Amino acid sequence: MRSIAIIGIGQTIIDEQWGRSIRQIAADAALAALKDAGRENAEGLFVGNMMSGTVNSQNNLGSLVADWAGLKSAGAVKVEAACASGAAAFRSGLMAVASGELESALVVGIEKMTDMTGHDVTAALATAADADYELEMGVSFVGLNALIMRRYMHEYGWKHADFAPFAINAHANALNNPFARLHHKITLDDFEKAAMIATPINLLDASPIGDGAAAMYIVPVERVHGRTRILVAGSASATDTIAIHNRSEALFLKAACKSAQQVYQQAGIGPNDIDVFELHDAFTIMSALSLEACGFSERGQGPRLGLEGEITPTGRVPISTRGGLKARGHPVGATGIYQLVEVVQQLRGEAGDTQVPDARIGMAQNIGGSGASIITHILKSE
Amino acid sequence: MRSIAIIGIGQTIIDEQWGRSIRQIAADAALAALKDAGRENAEGLFVGNMMSGTVNSQNNLGSLVADWAGLKSAGAVKVEAACASGAAAFRSGLMAVASGELESALVVGIEKMTDMTGHDVTAALATAADADYELEMGVSFVGLNALIMRRYMHEYGWKHADFAPFAINAHANALNNPFARLHHKITLDDFEKAAMIATPINLLDASPIGDGAAAMYIVPVERVHGRTRILVAGSASATDTIAIHNRSEALFLKAACKSAQQVYQQAGIGPNDIDVFELHDAFTIMSALSLEACGFSERGQGPRLGLEGEITPTGRVPISTRGGLKARGHPVGATGIYQLVEVVQQLRGEAGDTQVPDARIGMAQNIGGSGASIITHILKSE
Repeated sequence: MRSIAIIGIGQTIIDEQWGRSIRQIAADAALAALKDAGRENAEGLFVGNMMSGTVNSQNNLGSLVADWAGLKSAGAVKVEAACASGAAAFRSGLMAVASGELESALVVGIEKMTDMTGHDVTAALATAADADYELEMGVSFVGLNALIMRRYMHEYGWKHADFAPFAINAHANALNNPFARLHHKITLDDFEKAAMIATPINLLDASPIGDGAAAMYIVPVERVHGRTRILVAGSASATDTIAIHNRSEALFLKAACKSAQQVYQQAGIGPNDIDVFELHDAFTIMSALSLEACGFSERGQGPRLGLEGEITPTGRVPISTRGGLKARGHPVGATGIYQLVEVVQQLRGEAGDTQVPDARIGMAQNIGGSGASIITHILKSE
Repeated sequence: MRSIAIIGIGQTIIDEQWGRSIRQIAADAALAALKDAGRENAEGLFVGNMMSGTVNSQNNLGSLVADWAGLKSAGAVKVEAACASGAAAFRSGLMAVASGELESALVVGIEKMTDMTGHDVTAALATAADADYELEMGVSFVGLNALIMRRYMHEYGWKHADFAPFAINAHANALNNPFARLHHKITLDDFEKAAMIATPINLLDASPIGDGAAAMYIVPVERVHGRTRILVAGSASATDTIAIHNRSEALFLKAACKSAQQVYQQAGIGPNDIDVFELHDAFTIMSALSLEACGFSERGQGPRLGLEGEITPTGRVPISTRGGLKARGHPVGATGIYQLVEVVQQLRGEAGDTQVPDARIGMAQNIGGSGASIITHILKSE
């Protein structure tokens, strides 16, 4: 397999972009990545998106974005793996270039979620779960995560406040990120007093949705000269049962563990070598489970890393360094690309006030559904 | 790029399968392909599907199918390119195995369209077009094709009856295909008297929707021993503007031409070497345009091939040999895989009464939207 380098990144602000359509937002990010790469076209376009059919009445999304961004007749597809659609699109683009079939690929993650009422977005998000055996029972996506969090607190003896550091760190880091949805600090007191959504998940455990797009331009590594090279050192995808009730262990992200082990092996490293980790903090419980499954913490002990101050940009395991899903925002199908873009910013030394010192190896993990589709990447600079 | 072989195929009947869910239908085809390949698992699963989010309230479709088919934690994604989703998924799987990242992949095309009323399916199908500039004007997908057909008839002087051979050939061939949706012969008189849908497209110009799934199992060619080898000799994808009104030529499928030229070059052949061509006859006009764009006919002369009897299994350019979209049926996201499965049947000599004599090289072309996403493959036996 040919080694792949990332030579361009782009992103839009995450917000309620009522005045801009899905094609415009996607093209904004695509054109920014093209410009950053110094290219005008790409042989292939891979669009990560979950709900354009449902929310925007628009399938054929690959062609739509290729058309609007002015990519001349590039082959284009949409790749969907629920909330992991972004990383899934990146991995598809990666394999396409690695195969030698394409010499360049543009990967765009896009979600435009504010063309519907709040109720409908909740229904659209729930399509990440099992339609027949979970949704039919009336559970929402936050409801499923709440069931996991409640059981986790019961099994391991944590109280709700113990999850606060995940949200506080994310909000603090987002202050430095001009593309982030939320720009306000929060305190432990704020965290404890936030409005309840689905017990025990309250508003500050949960990430905000939004409209946004992020993009990356990739080429075979031998085509890169004269700049810091950001290489893809590992890429792996794994699945678990789609319904949580079918898992032998509801509190362990098996697919996160499997995909992390694979990328560690591909990169020839372990969790201690990771300088920055952009994880999928859609809910605070997911931060804990992701840290545990990827070997940064013992099972049931994920919250300890936050309580001990290890998750900040200068800590042992910096996470959500640009705000994470929690404060940068979670435009679902775009999130996986935002994570990768942010890792690239860290490895290039372009992360401003939340720059992780001497960051050379970064990991991003994107989770689809309640752990059913998990895709992990390791990037490194050289 | 590693050469790829197809070692397993599977398909379900296309029908209104009210009693079976999307996961069951998809898994039926997946398990049939696994059995045909003599395998129990695959490293990756690529699901071609257009409208599961809209019609089935189910995204995260890759994981859903992997779970239900019992694929142990294989990485899984859905690939969408409107009606070309099937071929798009195949091409994604192909590049993944070609890259060396995977040693095997299962590709499943699935669409379950009869869980909604007819009106809603029409709306769902229209998401293949441009939501903002075509759908907002109230045009349906058949309406767009009708505009193309009417202009084509005007420009080149064809009358409606001249398109009849495309439909008559497809229905005749489907009689031999147990998986086909429609099993009745039609005559020129039937064709001319069929109910009008959108002038000049009537019921017998149009393909029926349906629920169905088809699947293929692919591996690197060096892993294949002891059976007829079906190789992928060419794979290409191209796009055009999503809206028809943005094209300089509305009557020429530019993306079909480009992708066909690419696969001819990859395979080192030309149109005269193609023994069987499974084209995208969603409407009779699309058969004509596809034949022209792929070099089987001069521009504007596609209907002549039908009128001269050249499109039957014993003709010069056999098309729709198992019924085509017209009579086998068009479960949109699955269609591209049905086409490839049928080419494999021809190359294996398993096509029964509609077997093309000595078929060694076959082509399949899958069209998404009104020509916005077009993916072409050449397969050959050796």
